Amino acid sequence: MIECSGYTELLKRVGEIALVDSTGALLNWDEETYMPRQALNYRAEQLAYFSGWSHRQFTAPEVGDWIKACEDHGFAEGSDEAANVREWRRDYDRQTRIPADLVEEFSRASAIARDAWVEARKVSQFSRFQPHLEKLLQLNRRMADYWGYERTPYDALLEGHERNAKAAELKELFERLRPAIVEILRPAYERSRSIPEDYLEADYPIEGQKALNREVAAALGFDFEAGRIDTTTHPFCTGLGPRDCRLTTRYNPRDFSESLYGVLHEAGHGMYDQGLPEEHYGTPLGHAASMGIHESQSRLWENHVGRSREFWEHWHAKACRHLPALAKFTPEQIHTAINRVAPSFIRVEADQVTYDLHIILRFEIELQLVEGILPVKDVPGRWNEQFEKLFGLQVPDDARGCLQDIHWSLGAFGYFPTYTLGNLNAAQLMESACKQVPGLTGELAAGNYASLLQWLRTNVHAAGQRHTPQELMEKATGATTQTEPHLAALRRKFA
Amino acid sequence: MIECSGYTELLKRVGEIALVDSTGALLNWDEETYMPRQALNYRAEQLAYFSGWSHRQFTAPEVGDWIKACEDHGFAEGSDEAANVREWRRDYDRQTRIPADLVEEFSRASAIARDAWVEARKVSQFSRFQPHLEKLLQLNRRMADYWGYERTPYDALLEGHERNAKAAELKELFERLRPAIVEILRPAYERSRSIPEDYLEADYPIEGQKALNREVAAALGFDFEAGRIDTTTHPFCTGLGPRDCRLTTRYNPRDFSESLYGVLHEAGHGMYDQGLPEEHYGTPLGHAASMGIHESQSRLWENHVGRSREFWEHWHAKACRHLPALAKFTPEQIHTAINRVAPSFIRVEADQVTYDLHIILRFEIELQLVEGILPVKDVPGRWNEQFEKLFGLQVPDDARGCLQDIHWSLGAFGYFPTYTLGNLNAAQLMESACKQVPGLTGELAAGNYASLLQWLRTNVHAAGQRHTPQELMEKATGATTQTEPHLAALRRKFA
Repeated sequence: MIECSGYTELLKRVGEIALVDSTGALLNWDEETYMPRQALNYRAEQLAYFSGWSHRQFTAPEVGDWIKACEDHGFAEGSDEAANVREWRRDYDRQTRIPADLVEEFSRASAIARDAWVEARKVSQFSRFQPHLEKLLQLNRRMADYWGYERTPYDALLEGHERNAKAAELKELFERLRPAIVEILRPAYERSRSIPEDYLEADYPIEGQKALNREVAAALGFDFEAGRIDTTTHPFCTGLGPRDCRLTTRYNPRDFSESLYGVLHEAGHGMYDQGLPEEHYGTPLGHAASMGIHESQSRLWENHVGRSREFWEHWHAKACRHLPALAKFTPEQIHTAINRVAPSFIRVEADQVTYDLHIILRFEIELQLVEGILPVKDVPGRWNEQFEKLFGLQVPDDARGCLQDIHWSLGAFGYFPTYTLGNLNAAQLMESACKQVPGLTGELAAGNYASLLQWLRTNVHAAGQRHTPQELMEKATGATTQTEPHLAALRRKFA
Repeated sequence: MIECSGYTELLKRVGEIALVDSTGALLNWDEETYMPRQALNYRAEQLAYFSGWSHRQFTAPEVGDWIKACEDHGFAEGSDEAANVREWRRDYDRQTRIPADLVEEFSRASAIARDAWVEARKVSQFSRFQPHLEKLLQLNRRMADYWGYERTPYDALLEGHERNAKAAELKELFERLRPAIVEILRPAYERSRSIPEDYLEADYPIEGQKALNREVAAALGFDFEAGRIDTTTHPFCTGLGPRDCRLTTRYNPRDFSESLYGVLHEAGHGMYDQGLPEEHYGTPLGHAASMGIHESQSRLWENHVGRSREFWEHWHAKACRHLPALAKFTPEQIHTAINRVAPSFIRVEADQVTYDLHIILRFEIELQLVEGILPVKDVPGRWNEQFEKLFGLQVPDDARGCLQDIHWSLGAFGYFPTYTLGNLNAAQLMESACKQVPGLTGELAAGNYASLLQWLRTNVHAAGQRHTPQELMEKATGATTQTEPHLAALRRKFA
């Protein structure tokens, strides 16, 4: 093979950027977990400095020259190099349109907004968060203008989370999904009425929850030699290096399921992170394909594995050792209660049926925010009004309404729809894994998750960004993202 | 005032370096506290990258030009600018002598050595640590050669921790101290024989210890809005930014004093850090004067406040609320037991009398290591032999011998003597504070520490590196570092 010096230079440069970005991820993780309160302003300076540095390093003119040299060199189609060059080109073009000072301003504003959100949520006052949301929206619109778009600035933001996705298509998809979900919801909700909301409520000591969560996450395949679990307001998963993946969850001493399913969800993300090829760390081939693919991994482990009848048949006895209060329930009772379907306020605690309705609500609101149709001050009013239409419930306060999620405080718009894409992809991947791996359902019932993880490693994780999200789905499952596997799984469980 | 653009440029540059160095401190803190094991190698890469970057930024030719421009400009003697320029010159000359690749190599080697030390200490096998210590010594000698020295390479290393200190002078100082300490030790040890070593041994739940430590540290004046306490193998204190100071300690469920006095010690460092002038953060005026001054702050709070009779008279009732097992002792009994004098293996657990003997031992060994007189493989033998001479005890294993301290694993040689300088400075500062602040002893007896902290803020903390360590001592106490206040305090308590 003829060497291309531009490629070597690019590898060196993105290696340095990865060192800095992974450190930025530590600064963020620490801010959420252990940082003393008064350190906030300086932390924002640190984050702004590194994100600005990183942006400048990747958008420097020589990087453009190196990418051009690689393209002129012409790496063989299907080669590692060709895939990396294709993605570098895409990122470079996207990032060079944003001036470095805007990147820094955005980073600073979102660090401060995130803190304001924590406070606002604590006292349930949207007005405390409002100026920060306004600022972040304004910065997002400026970025969308720099990136350019055909139909709506929302498309430009969406592209940052899910390549090639378009607001109009999502709108159509969601309009198809909504009635099908509502149809499944009605009888499922009806049947769930016999299960009280607090059916599983009992004393679940936090230390016991932690021990159970850890045992389950390790059994699924999350590697604790290369990762850990901490406690935060909002669960998340972040990679701080090639062998350093950190999950977080939150604890409710009366409801073990909040932390357990938080961990199953984040461990799904974490196992994807741990399954990315380490030798490609810092390059597109070592990077997750998209948010919609990332979310498929969390939803697959959380819902298709963790909320199955087999899961509780296998785990009940073990769980009782950590949480003795579970002994008064049968596995079947826990399974039924865990899958109780009922409209509720908090997205991350929503059942599998209503979950996508939460996404549809957020998508509609943020689309209007980004398009400037909805003034920020009207968010709580619009949220509560739409929530009542969709769920038939009156939102009691902003903490259980428009302040519940961290995403907007991070300045992330266009992220929410990837959750529903994730649900669809999860069902479709699970269906394919069960078809392709002989005896898989039996293994899962026996609490043996290695074959499923291996199938995901091979068909999803190992690819990094070698394929576009839709190519990846097609290679793994034979088709691009469909609604049917998801609806079929819901019908099987809830109809 | 006529502006000096070189000074403005320097402020900007050291501001950026502070952003990066404080992030490096977070990478280090995280490595000690929460980082997953397998992340070690990448963490070493991150640290090496940032320390190399930082070194290059400060040693760049333009920095030399800016310092020169400041010197030519001639800031008024006694001004902030003059003090900063003086220290920048000193640091610049010191750092420009070390090539960037040696800085990076040292950073990488010490990150790996620190981990090897943790493992070696766990299994008490010096041989596992030996190659790392050899490597670090070799790198230290190379650095000493670059820095230059008159009499011994040790002086060049010492200079990094304590300005103007010389091995020959320390040797002389220690030779004067040793017999005076031995003289105090003999009768004190004799009297302590009536107190069993395990006199205070009982069940002290770790959660109770944590709560007590936190309450005491807050009462002394450590600001938890700008700091925190975590758990590590070896207690330390690190500043991660202008309002972010983190202490660590370790817990023994049968001996509360290990964690409590660890916290008092580190909180002394932490309050110094929190008392440095924030507006000068990142410049010499925002930086601690020296290690010997830093250590004076930890020893003052740990020993002169925390190990006093008055401390236990005030804290006993409060301590019992967190640790009920303490109720079976009187304050006097706790005070006596806490001040039990007996030769023992672990420096950080040593009583006030034998403590400096630990330092003398380490100083002699590291001096010979640095001078190449003692081969690294002979360290355990030499340690054990000298230990028996000084303390009359046979070292049972390396973990309780030459592997107990973290310092060498960090590549820090010439650091240990600053502990004894700290002891001397602590006694001298405490003596002056009591003379200068009317009613101070009464306030301390009542558990009111604000006046003492204020005196230290004014006379020590606020100065940063405005003065040399010895100038600072002279301004605060009327004399440079003396042995007499320390020996007098020991005699008062132990004679």
